[in-house]
Formats: sequence, C-alpha cells, structure tokens
Amino acid sequence: MHTRIKEYIESHGERFLSELFDLIRIPSVSAQPARRDDVLKAAEYVRARLEEIGAETELLPTDGFPLVYGKIEVSATAPTVVVYGHYDVQPAEPFELWQTPPFEPVLRDGKIYARGANDDKGQMYMQIKAVETLVRLGALPCNVKFLIEGEEEIGSASLDAAIKKYADRYAGDVMLISDTSIIHLNTPSLTVSLRGLAYVEVELTGPCRDLHSGHYGGAVENPCNVLCSMIHSLRDENYRITIPGFYDDVYELTAEERAKLAERPFDRTEYLRNLDMADTRGESGYSILEQASIRPSLDVNGIWGGYTGEGSKTVLPSKASAKISMRLVPHQRHDDIAEKFKKHFEAIAPPSMKVKTTTHHGGNPFMTPTDSTGYRAAAAALKECLGKEPIPTREGGSIPILALFNEVLNMPIVLMGFGYDTDGIHGPNEHYGLDNFFRGIESIAMFYHKYAELSKA
Amino acid sequence: MHTRIKEYIESHGERFLSELFDLIRIPSVSAQPARRDDVLKAAEYVRARLEEIGAETELLPTDGFPLVYGKIEVSATAPTVVVYGHYDVQPAEPFELWQTPPFEPVLRDGKIYARGANDDKGQMYMQIKAVETLVRLGALPCNVKFLIEGEEEIGSASLDAAIKKYADRYAGDVMLISDTSIIHLNTPSLTVSLRGLAYVEVELTGPCRDLHSGHYGGAVENPCNVLCSMIHSLRDENYRITIPGFYDDVYELTAEERAKLAERPFDRTEYLRNLDMADTRGESGYSILEQASIRPSLDVNGIWGGYTGEGSKTVLPSKASAKISMRLVPHQRHDDIAEKFKKHFEAIAPPSMKVKTTTHHGGNPFMTPTDSTGYRAAAAALKECLGKEPIPTREGGSIPILALFNEVLNMPIVLMGFGYDTDGIHGPNEHYGLDNFFRGIESIAMFYHKYAELSKA
Repeated sequence: MHTRIKEYIESHGERFLSELFDLIRIPSVSAQPARRDDVLKAAEYVRARLEEIGAETELLPTDGFPLVYGKIEVSATAPTVVVYGHYDVQPAEPFELWQTPPFEPVLRDGKIYARGANDDKGQMYMQIKAVETLVRLGALPCNVKFLIEGEEEIGSASLDAAIKKYADRYAGDVMLISDTSIIHLNTPSLTVSLRGLAYVEVELTGPCRDLHSGHYGGAVENPCNVLCSMIHSLRDENYRITIPGFYDDVYELTAEERAKLAERPFDRTEYLRNLDMADTRGESGYSILEQASIRPSLDVNGIWGGYTGEGSKTVLPSKASAKISMRLVPHQRHDDIAEKFKKHFEAIAPPSMKVKTTTHHGGNPFMTPTDSTGYRAAAAALKECLGKEPIPTREGGSIPILALFNEVLNMPIVLMGFGYDTDGIHGPNEHYGLDNFFRGIESIAMFYHKYAELSKA
Repeated sequence: MHTRIKEYIESHGERFLSELFDLIRIPSVSAQPARRDDVLKAAEYVRARLEEIGAETELLPTDGFPLVYGKIEVSATAPTVVVYGHYDVQPAEPFELWQTPPFEPVLRDGKIYARGANDDKGQMYMQIKAVETLVRLGALPCNVKFLIEGEEEIGSASLDAAIKKYADRYAGDVMLISDTSIIHLNTPSLTVSLRGLAYVEVELTGPCRDLHSGHYGGAVENPCNVLCSMIHSLRDENYRITIPGFYDDVYELTAEERAKLAERPFDRTEYLRNLDMADTRGESGYSILEQASIRPSLDVNGIWGGYTGEGSKTVLPSKASAKISMRLVPHQRHDDIAEKFKKHFEAIAPPSMKVKTTTHHGGNPFMTPTDSTGYRAAAAALKECLGKEPIPTREGGSIPILALFNEVLNMPIVLMGFGYDTDGIHGPNEHYGLDNFFRGIESIAMFYHKYAELSKA
C-alpha cells in the first residue's frame, strides 16, 4: 500500500501543485473587507476540488464566511476521520518586503513562496490530496468529513455557533489537522500542546487635537511617550508580565516534563543566525524553547501614533495606539486574561490620558493526550514514512478553535503538521518545502490505514 | 497717520483676505516631494503680490526652493527693514481630523480655518499688506526688503548657504518677523526667546524578517516592545531627560527672571479644558509655562511598527521606528544634542537590536535684547494700536534660522507675532483670527513709523 501511495503521488504531483497554486492565487485575506469576494472564491474553489475527488459537498452558511463541508462515506462501520483546515490567509502587508508578489506563487530552491504556501493552504491541500490518492487507489479505509473554514486568521469568529449548529454532520471518531509544525522531515514530531491567545487593541488620547510640539512640548503629556512607558511597564526586569493575576492559572511543567522538552534538538547559534540577531532575551529562568512554548508572552504586534510620513513634523499627537497580544499556556483562559489586561492597562494610565481598549479574537490553550488511537496512528504513519518515531512537541502558536472542537465535537484531535518554524508564516516571503508537501500527503494517506488497523484491534 | 492706516485697511480688508485665501489654496507642503510644484507656485504667487505693491522682485535660486526677494527703496538715508517669512506649510495629514478641507480656507466664528492660516501664510501676508498700506498712503518711511523662504517647515535646509550668498542684498538695520504668538490682542506681547530643536529618527531592527508571534513570542525580543522601553528610559521619574550631558549647557533663569515670567496671565483650568485633559505633567519643579518655554523637552512626534491595519495580525515585527524631537533652550546647541542623543540611544539598545539613527533638521535656541531700536519701536506700535505695553515673553516654538540671521546678517531681530498658542498650527483645524490678521496689519504699519522716528532720535 505504501508503495502504491508513493507512486500515485509521484505521477500526479505536478497537478497537485498546480491546483494548490490556483488556490494560493486567490487572495483570501479574511481580515480585509475589500477581499471578501476572494475569500468566498477560495471557499468555492476548495468545494469544487472536494467534489472532484468524490465527496458530497456543500458550503455551510455561517454568520461570516461559509464552512466547506465534504463527506466521503466508505461504509457505515468504518471509523470516521474529520479533517479540519482553513482557506483564509493572513494579510500580506507590507508588500514591499516580499521578494516576489505574495499571491503569485513561485518555486525557488525547492520551496513554494507565497502567502498561504504553508498556512494553511499548503497544509490543508495535502489533506485533500491524501484522500484523493486513497480514493483513486480504491483504498480509503475510513469515512472522511471535511471542515474547512474561512475565518481562522480572524479568530474563527463564526465557528462557535456554526459548529454547534452543524455538530451532527460532523460526528466522527478523530479530528485530523495539518496547521502546525514538524521539527524536521528527518526528526518527525507531533504537536501535543499549543498556546492560546488574548489580543487587545489600545488607544490613548491625550490632548483633544494634535498640538505644536514647540508650544506644548514639555508641559503637555504626549500619548506616544506615555504609551511607550505603559507598554514598558507591562514586563519587569526579568521579562515577567506584571499584569496582576496573569500567572495565576499557568501550568508549571514538572522537572521531568521540562527534561523531556529539552531533548528536542536545538541550536541557539543557528536559531539566532537564522534571525540575523546577535542575541535575544526572554523570561529569566527558561530556555528559548520553553519561552516560546510553555511560557506565556506579551508582544506588541503593531504600534502607531503621530506623524509617520516622510520627513519631519513637529507634532505632539493627540492619540497613540497599539495592538498587543499575549500567548497563553494551559490553564490560562483568554477571556480572563483579556479582562485582566484591560483592567490593569486602564489602571496604570496617568490621569492625563483617556484609554480605550478593544478585544480582538482570542483562544484558549490546548493539550492533547498521547495515548489516543489517533495519536498512535499518526505516530505509526510518521515512523513508516519518515523513518523515526515522532517526538511529542509543545508549540508556541495557537489554533483557538481546538478547545471548541474538544468541547462540542468531543473527539481526540491529532495535530499532524508538516511546516517548519522557519517558513515565515504570517510574515513576508512565507514559504513551504516541496518535500514537506509531498511527504506530508504520503504520511497523511498512511495515517488512514494505521488508524483503521488500530481501530479494529 | 494711525487713522489713515486704519481706514485703508478697513476699505481694502476684503481684498486682503481674498488674496490670502488664494495663497492658502496652494498646498505648498515642502516636506512632501509630490507637492513640489505647489511650493513653487506659492513662491511665484507671493512674488507677484510684492510686484503689485511696487517692489522690485526676484525669485532667488537656492539648492532647494527659491527665496522670494522684494525691495522697496524710499531713500538712500532711510533705515532698512528686512521682513522674513515663509510660504511653505506643514503637512496637513491626518486629513480626516479636519472639519473642513485644509486647503480650502473658510471663515467660521471670526476665524480663518486652513493649513497655513496662521503659520505662516496668514502672518507673513500681514507684513505684505502693511507695506502695501503705507505705499498706497504715500507714507512708507523706511526701505523694505522681503526674504520669504519655502523651506521653513523642513528646517530651512538651503537657507544657510543662500543667506551667505545673498548677504549683500539683504543688508539692513532690523529684521521683522511675524511667525510667533501674542498672548492676546488685549494683552500684547513680544517674543524675546525661542527654543531650539533637535530632531532624530530612529529605527530598530530585531529579527531580519517579520515573525509569527506564536512561534517566537516570548523568546525573540520584539523591536516594538524594546523601542517602547528605550523611549521610556529617556526620561526619569521626574520627567528629566536622561541623556548624559543633556543639561550641560542649559541656561537656568534667575529667580528674578522666573518671577517676571510668572506675571504672564495663565489659567491652568482653562488650559486643560482647552486641551480636554483631566491633568498633565512635565518636569518636576517647574510651572507649565516654564516647562513649555525655558525648559528643554523630548517628544515622540511619530512612532510606528508592525501591523497597523484593520483587524488583528499576530506578527512579531522585524522593525520599529520613531521620530523623536527635543526642544532646546539657550545655550544648548542642536548638533551637540543630536549627537548626544544618538550616542546614548545606540548605547542603551540591547544586543538583540540593530539601531539606525538619522538626524532631521535642527536649529539653535534664540534670545533677543529688549533695548534695541527695533524692540522699542515694536513695543511703541503695539502700545498705540492695542492699548497696552507689551509683555516680553519666552516661547516654546522654534525658528531655527534666527541664529543664522544673527550671525550672517548681523542685525537685531524683532519677533512681532499675532497668532494664539491655541490656533492649532501644525495640527488639524489650524486657524487664525480675523482680528489678529487685521490688527496685525495695523500694528506692523505703525511699526515702520515708530522705527523711523526712533532711528532719527
């Protein structure tokens, strides 16, 4: 079976890629209202590709962008795998930092360069092509359902209600997702935990209008300066976050768990070289890997205020704003943290400033057990296809809706991702390795066989 | 004479205003390359109006925008007044904060609303109309030369070389400038000192590309967060600037000088109400007026980094930037302060960040004596036209080229401004009172008579 799968992928790979490129060319940026039609076009494109491989399909309406539903039933007694992915992408700005236009995919050095090449068009499309491979070989041993959404990059705003509404259609035994990283194709891994996210936008208003910095500078508090001081104060000298109660629910790993985590290969020099940084710093007492996975963080994702054009303008601005997000770890809850942030931020503002805070999408952290049938099937598939037992890893990113799936659909979730952390997702020049794409399809196809076997046992 | 001056202004006031409006409609923003033709158009417009009132005129080429030169000689023995002003304006962004479009002047509540209504088109045009008044009345007692430049808002970049080149043409006895404020038409004042300006742009680069804040957040230092901390650290808890050596050359006023300054009427409640601020704070130990005039300041004029568009983006940005300016007081020197800033800013950056600093235009602080013929003539004119002896004031703004005029043209400078600090220059909804415009023309015309009289004595 493994050989037949590899042969099919080899003889159809060029078409797989060409289909993926067509999907990438649709700039389905869910955060930008001007891209609305493109997001819908991407949904329809995915639906049509599912139809082609023999699925019953439908675009399920939600309060926002539709869910692409697809279903292939092989038998009433076979186990059912629910595949989740998303057809929307992050904004591609700033465009000028891209070597080639973000929505015109190109191959360079064995990698696909484009917005969505990895996250999640590239990874999601592997799932569809893995199922195509099994269908065409007459060797699909499980029922499959597809749940491909269009609002992942804006916090899956409509998914909560939609999942509850369509819960019956999505009944199944295991959920399979490719939207995370693998350490390397030579060092396979499966993600067992993800961080959550709380995202708040803040706006300070000082004087009610922009002022001349000569007439007022020194006397009137400047919201840009004040915002800097407030943001500075959100972390102490050990880079611990100072928001009261922030660490209350943080799960502290045992010494054993931390030791296991430290087994993951990590080369600090190479890590910094890749980022072109002389040094870096995070919370005292934790390694870089720990700082970026098992510890919460606070980052300014955007900041703006005053005159940012060419040349100089001597303005004392009326307003300053920032987008600030916090990555959360088990068992922090995003709504609790967003509230604590807002309360604290308002409390530390000087009386000269009016504060407005707005919560953007959030999501809770996630952990999955390693003894489920799904996890074991994925581990077996990776071992067969990539040659090694996968390492269970804890990742720093977030898939906010995993907690929801756990709660509403009530099935184990397997995070079988094939991207690299260095793929530049969410930034310019996002890319995805051709090897990752094709070996991913192969491993996913094998997953279905391992899962069917283990389910029978 | 005073009566004839008032009558002439009254009967020609409507045309004066209409001419000023035409000048304002030319968006001569010197900082914006796209406005280049408009800046040149404004120069030509001013030249043509000078020609109309009987001046020999010329556009004197410089390395940047031309100087508008104008000369009216009444006799070889009469004293010569050199009028300085500028025909360029600040950028009007952000446009959406203007109640009416910035380059379409309108009258509202007795005020002209437009970019440049005050700074400096409105004030500069008073000078031209005052001379017209005297010329048409056959009562101009002094020779006049006009020096109207087009780069004041970008630091008079070409003026240094140009003034040296054209120094002979601009020989004279006193320089008269309307580009500052008056306390009120009911409380006349003359500016005796101005602050200087050092303006630096900084850019931090952390990782060489934008990163996913989930994969890297907590481990990789974020240039936006670091920039906030660095800016915060530039002032201590007493709002004193922490740059080493920053205060070395600051002139500390005597107790007597500070007492004199405190005589200026000031209503803290009204000041805050006008800004719609509950409170404000500046350097400890100084009053608001002092903080904004005799003490140096440090303001962020602009800050930007990361994603600043709609919605949310979970990016850990590669870069963060800010425009930071410092108002300087006698005897600080802008080049020295800019150097100290840059050296300090580079020194406090953590090893994770690459720092780039760029100096924008600067200017030295200025003080003028109160016993010169020019100052006494201006005081006498204001007393006659506005009814009270003017108060000598120290202002917070900067006219960077005054130090240059002092040095190269070597004549006393009289700062006879008629704007209010609340006119919103450099910000949205800049305005200028009609009364200020017309009473200004009247007072300036009287200045020529007082100056001629005092020169004879």
